Amino acid sequence: MKRIYLDNASITPTRKEVLKEMVKYYGYEYGNPSSIHTEGVNAKKALEEAKKSLAFSINAHSDEIIFTSNGTEANNLAILGMKLEGKHAITSTIEHSSVLRVFKELEKRGLSVTYVNVDENGIIDLKELKDSLKKETVLISIMLVNNEIGTIQPISEIAHIIRKSGLSILFHTDASQALLYLDINIDKLGVDMLSMDGHKVYGPKGIGALYIKRRTIMEKELKLGTENLPAVKGFVKAVELAKNEQQKEVTRLCELRDYCIQKLEKECGAKLNGDRKKRIANNINISISNIDTEFLTLQLDAEGIAVSTKSSCLKDENESYVLKAIGNSNPKNAIRITLGRDTTKKNIDKLVKVVKKHV
Amino acid sequence: MKRIYLDNASITPTRKEVLKEMVKYYGYEYGNPSSIHTEGVNAKKALEEAKKSLAFSINAHSDEIIFTSNGTEANNLAILGMKLEGKHAITSTIEHSSVLRVFKELEKRGLSVTYVNVDENGIIDLKELKDSLKKETVLISIMLVNNEIGTIQPISEIAHIIRKSGLSILFHTDASQALLYLDINIDKLGVDMLSMDGHKVYGPKGIGALYIKRRTIMEKELKLGTENLPAVKGFVKAVELAKNEQQKEVTRLCELRDYCIQKLEKECGAKLNGDRKKRIANNINISISNIDTEFLTLQLDAEGIAVSTKSSCLKDENESYVLKAIGNSNPKNAIRITLGRDTTKKNIDKLVKVVKKHV
Repeated sequence: MKRIYLDNASITPTRKEVLKEMVKYYGYEYGNPSSIHTEGVNAKKALEEAKKSLAFSINAHSDEIIFTSNGTEANNLAILGMKLEGKHAITSTIEHSSVLRVFKELEKRGLSVTYVNVDENGIIDLKELKDSLKKETVLISIMLVNNEIGTIQPISEIAHIIRKSGLSILFHTDASQALLYLDINIDKLGVDMLSMDGHKVYGPKGIGALYIKRRTIMEKELKLGTENLPAVKGFVKAVELAKNEQQKEVTRLCELRDYCIQKLEKECGAKLNGDRKKRIANNINISISNIDTEFLTLQLDAEGIAVSTKSSCLKDENESYVLKAIGNSNPKNAIRITLGRDTTKKNIDKLVKVVKKHV
Repeated sequence: MKRIYLDNASITPTRKEVLKEMVKYYGYEYGNPSSIHTEGVNAKKALEEAKKSLAFSINAHSDEIIFTSNGTEANNLAILGMKLEGKHAITSTIEHSSVLRVFKELEKRGLSVTYVNVDENGIIDLKELKDSLKKETVLISIMLVNNEIGTIQPISEIAHIIRKSGLSILFHTDASQALLYLDINIDKLGVDMLSMDGHKVYGPKGIGALYIKRRTIMEKELKLGTENLPAVKGFVKAVELAKNEQQKEVTRLCELRDYCIQKLEKECGAKLNGDRKKRIANNINISISNIDTEFLTLQLDAEGIAVSTKSSCLKDENESYVLKAIGNSNPKNAIRITLGRDTTKKNIDKLVKVVKKHV
């Protein structure tokens, strides 16, 4: 029985084309881009081409791209580059756990942080954000798409608020969940920094990138290890493929997503978490009252379907702070279903059938 | 013309067997080890097996292994896990630049650091280390093998000094350059933490590991992202292969290394940097007076031979602080030649011939 994998927000399987590209750079072009010999020069050239391609796909310049070990490292670089003492930063209550963890740590070291709330659909409260601005504010970090409930945040509106304030603020967005399905244009978004992650876009694990706008002054020097060229090339290939297929795939997935939501609501009494419209193409997050979703997840698994109860990054916590933030009274009762390239209508029908059987 | 790659201390090419192992875990077993569905459970199982194998190869327990993004991250985890205020740490003047960078940063945050000197062969001064011990000393970090001059440090003697002192000190060693050619036995070494790196052992880039002895109390909780399973599996495969071939390969390389050193000394007037005996199997570091080694490196490159003028991690610095530390009066005049699996006697003869032509 072929398994039905519906946990693509957690990890997307690496595409065959991506793997093929990576293999080229393992064992053959093994130069260190910092070395001056031919192997090193070739590696540097390959790296520059990769930067150019990734930059192109988000309408940036290649010198604005830094490759990192993953999306988390990109977030860390963006957030940790600032001065702390007596300064102020703004983020949201539903950021990725790795981002919140860094801010909690920085609070201990003298940074003041405002955690802006979201409405019942998981959209950031722009008025609250605006009211939080101070002359000490140096950084705002708001994710483009939430990893649990898939809501798309009004990033360009926030950029507009920042510009209008006249304050000198760096604006960062974590676009890990967005890169695959949104047409990201740095100019239109108006951000200074943007994080990306390889294993969320059918690229390899172990690679991410940070876009940093030209002339952005970081307080601390960015120092990273040897670039991981095979992973870089695989990641960039994945982004190129995604961009080529984006329009068609987003249309297909949105239809499939809405079909699935409708069926789950109608036939299983599910309640949708997050915004119905401002929602990434592949995300479905539902609550079903009076059901142990951990049990349901295991039942689905036994029938060959992989879904998730919550973000797999929340190893230790018992319940989702994202669902709590949108006022869900029982954050343990949720299932996240994230569609992917292979997902078919037949898969959805099977999923709904199994869920129905157990509710 | 097949190129002769003699920069293996910088990056080793990923072995075919390793790549084959990695490919198995890309696209097929794409579970997130933290997830509860079958894909996640399989990934977790595969990860546990990998930990077991790596632990076995250094005589440790599998719960003492943490996978990281690379050797640098392993070093960072080891060093940054400590409390700083009013505390004292000891390291050496010839540690890897990434380690020294962390200590310089921690000094700013209130840690007092002693940088112990090395003798003219690059071996740590044990008396100086012993005299540096204080009741505030909480961490000692000394690399097992130096990346530039290949000297093997007396790690077990240092462990003995620490034990005799009765102080409660965590002892960390960076074994990135050592894992391939030394038989590492945690019990015999007597360290509490040990860093490893994938792309120094014919494994992939983007993966490393930290051994942490059971019951070692870190002040800060270790939080890392999703494990990079394909890279983990590739890394572990590389270590298994290396361990199987180690004895034979070390004998072969030591002979080749000593042959090369002798010829360079005799025919090209080279002077060896670092210890002649306490030296890793594949490292040759020589100085030749009155020669521009950057020019020589490019000449060698034109003839198909890749060597390095200094550690490729020293992007910004002009000259080697390691060579300065051993009293080399002209640290710009050095070449590092690091042999590998493919290196033959014929390669060495060609290298010597080209060097001879240019001196």
